[in-house]
Amino acid sequence: MSTQIIRGSFLDFVEDPFHKSDSDSVRYLPDGLLVIEDGKITAFGAYETLQEKYADSEIINYSDKLITPGLIDLHVHYPQTEMIAAYGEQLLQWLEKYTFPTEAKFKDPEYARTIAAFFLDELLRNGTTTAVVLTTIFPQSVEVLFEEARDRRMRLIAGQVLMTRNAPDFLINDAQTAYAQTREQIQKWHGLDRLLYAITPRFAITSTPKELTLAGKLKAEFPDVYVHTHLAENVQEVQFTAELFPESKDYLNVYEQFDLVSDRSIFAHCIQLDDSAFQRLSDAGAAIAFCPTSNLFLGSGLFKLDQAKSTNYPIKVGLATDVGGGTSFSQLKTMSDAYKIMQLQGKSLSVFQAFYLATLGAAKALSLEDKIGSFEVGKEADFVVLDLQATPLMKLRNPHAKSENLAELAEKAFAMMILGDERTVQATYVAGKLAYENSIG
Amino acid sequence: MSTQIIRGSFLDFVEDPFHKSDSDSVRYLPDGLLVIEDGKITAFGAYETLQEKYADSEIINYSDKLITPGLIDLHVHYPQTEMIAAYGEQLLQWLEKYTFPTEAKFKDPEYARTIAAFFLDELLRNGTTTAVVLTTIFPQSVEVLFEEARDRRMRLIAGQVLMTRNAPDFLINDAQTAYAQTREQIQKWHGLDRLLYAITPRFAITSTPKELTLAGKLKAEFPDVYVHTHLAENVQEVQFTAELFPESKDYLNVYEQFDLVSDRSIFAHCIQLDDSAFQRLSDAGAAIAFCPTSNLFLGSGLFKLDQAKSTNYPIKVGLATDVGGGTSFSQLKTMSDAYKIMQLQGKSLSVFQAFYLATLGAAKALSLEDKIGSFEVGKEADFVVLDLQATPLMKLRNPHAKSENLAELAEKAFAMMILGDERTVQATYVAGKLAYENSIG
Repeated sequence: MSTQIIRGSFLDFVEDPFHKSDSDSVRYLPDGLLVIEDGKITAFGAYETLQEKYADSEIINYSDKLITPGLIDLHVHYPQTEMIAAYGEQLLQWLEKYTFPTEAKFKDPEYARTIAAFFLDELLRNGTTTAVVLTTIFPQSVEVLFEEARDRRMRLIAGQVLMTRNAPDFLINDAQTAYAQTREQIQKWHGLDRLLYAITPRFAITSTPKELTLAGKLKAEFPDVYVHTHLAENVQEVQFTAELFPESKDYLNVYEQFDLVSDRSIFAHCIQLDDSAFQRLSDAGAAIAFCPTSNLFLGSGLFKLDQAKSTNYPIKVGLATDVGGGTSFSQLKTMSDAYKIMQLQGKSLSVFQAFYLATLGAAKALSLEDKIGSFEVGKEADFVVLDLQATPLMKLRNPHAKSENLAELAEKAFAMMILGDERTVQATYVAGKLAYENSIG
Repeated sequence: MSTQIIRGSFLDFVEDPFHKSDSDSVRYLPDGLLVIEDGKITAFGAYETLQEKYADSEIINYSDKLITPGLIDLHVHYPQTEMIAAYGEQLLQWLEKYTFPTEAKFKDPEYARTIAAFFLDELLRNGTTTAVVLTTIFPQSVEVLFEEARDRRMRLIAGQVLMTRNAPDFLINDAQTAYAQTREQIQKWHGLDRLLYAITPRFAITSTPKELTLAGKLKAEFPDVYVHTHLAENVQEVQFTAELFPESKDYLNVYEQFDLVSDRSIFAHCIQLDDSAFQRLSDAGAAIAFCPTSNLFLGSGLFKLDQAKSTNYPIKVGLATDVGGGTSFSQLKTMSDAYKIMQLQGKSLSVFQAFYLATLGAAKALSLEDKIGSFEVGKEADFVVLDLQATPLMKLRNPHAKSENLAELAEKAFAMMILGDERTVQATYVAGKLAYENSIG
């Protein structure tokens, strides 16, 4: 049996900091101990309490660092890694001009594997241990991603992208073929090691009713598989969707009509939604992936997070980078843009709320809160070691790295979230094993 | 005579890329040579053309790097360096809660010197060679900044902050005293080496009419000194100003009434301005400092850059970090947020327009285009060496660092601007001398 014991300052959540006070929702151990056996957490608590039991064990000490659960990225396109930061367009034009030509390359499995490996390593460099990933219409692009994620022992959710219209010929699949390919992949990958499958129609615009019907059929055949798609990102997109599906009362209703909205559904963006749609997402237990850097970069708009997190109709929300529409793999940078989006709406976002959206909140969005997202005993030991003094400026801002209490932590961790990036990640552990270490830090 | 010869790819501007096409405004030398004697540019051109003349000279070769004029930061608060990224407030509350207590510390000249030195080094780490800097009400905080800048041979513009009301007692000065202190500083520092002085009322809210009258008097006594202040950043601030100056027809008119608006005036923010104010700024030849990261972080709003740069009433605009309201000393990150602000308004911002705002555009905003901002022969040799492959992700995005033509450069440099930060800065030269070198890169 392999045992690791980690000492440091630990931050995680026991409740939702959008709905409870910090002291009732945040768990902070200034000096804690995390014990891992065979990749799972077997003990967690104050060093003082646990030290006697592990007095003779080797302890990995991160005493000046802040350790949080591994970050979760609720929506990201791995084939767009190499076209991140493409100039000048809003959503539909950007897809046409940059995205579709890039995705075409993923027909070549060798090429796809190179990018998949880079993508996963980049996630780890950024402290992200779980992601919900879009691929392309090519089954081989899904295969290599799952293979590479399995090699890295990551908990990853992905699926083949379904597209049958309104895209270039080279990115159009036959609905029936795509159904068969997806079905086969679900049987092969869903539940294998830590991998899970998501039925992934790109968005309503690129799907025929037939394809969505088949997607709904798959979901009925495999109820515990995810559905992952885009919803109401951009005004033009919403208008075009309304034209394509005149019988649907709104955009969300398209997915509802094909039985694709459940507590295993993840909808990216949801910027252009009204009260009714928020209410129905809440009723269904469906989740929203909030993609701040992307929403700003593509000029899509300001997500109404306060509305989605209101107690009227609480919705499961997680944070997402949405690379390549998003501008960074760093969830810290994503949090920073989330804060800016809230400020532009005259609201705020605490560092605890932000980290919740990328840890336990995202785990709940995925119905995986029994497996990941916090340091509860029994969960899988994915975590990230953060350096609050990663740059000269951060060191000036946080001259003492360690926080003695929650108020101190709130201030220091907020500055880290605003100033931070992948340099802030000192180390990333996946299922208890060191998966990345910052050699510069 | 000390001579340096630099070889690399050079980017600068000969016209305004907001008003002319890229090919008419951008100068790009894929393989260029920059010759410097005693801190000034004595020759600049294609390597092929100049090489013979310098065949026997030692050449510093940055062949895979992009060299631009030193970046100019048109508005930044050095005492706020250590309180960057403070949580949760919009402008007026943020001043009260975080800014004023921090600025109080600058009464201590030793403390002020430590931060001044850090601040200037941080500018250089970010490729910024000229900045327009706010200090505090304490003369000693101005003295140490000028001394440190002089040691670094930087072209810096700064001035004592004038505050006589609506601030804590410990940050209130007597108007007549402040006048005398400023007068003395102008005589000591303005024009000494590369240093220049700015009369710096913080903003209308913290100045009495008497103080603004004295500021106007100083400006009349020393016409080539700058005026540097804030204007129309936040809605609450605009309302409060209207209450304090009921006789002024709008916020800008406050400064106009005290003769503080000229072609040497720099107004930070200008988010809440109407057409008439834009027109008057244009007529006066006054400049706007556009502060994207700050405007988002404090939720102040979206600056109407397209309106300010329209040909109806062209206004001189430069880019600014506005640390500590801004979230980064990096003008690359500032450009990235500028792009996002434009996208949210359904507009775009090319990488050339962005770099113009931080080089020649900012130099023109300062009426210093005869001295800095481009590689014209005779100008001071401030420049920055940028690495388009500074991170693994940037290297994937730009697998070939060098651009053969303007279209290639537009794409690569845009990705660099979106993904970049101070790691992108390979080296910074001030007046021809290496002032910073990235030891990791």
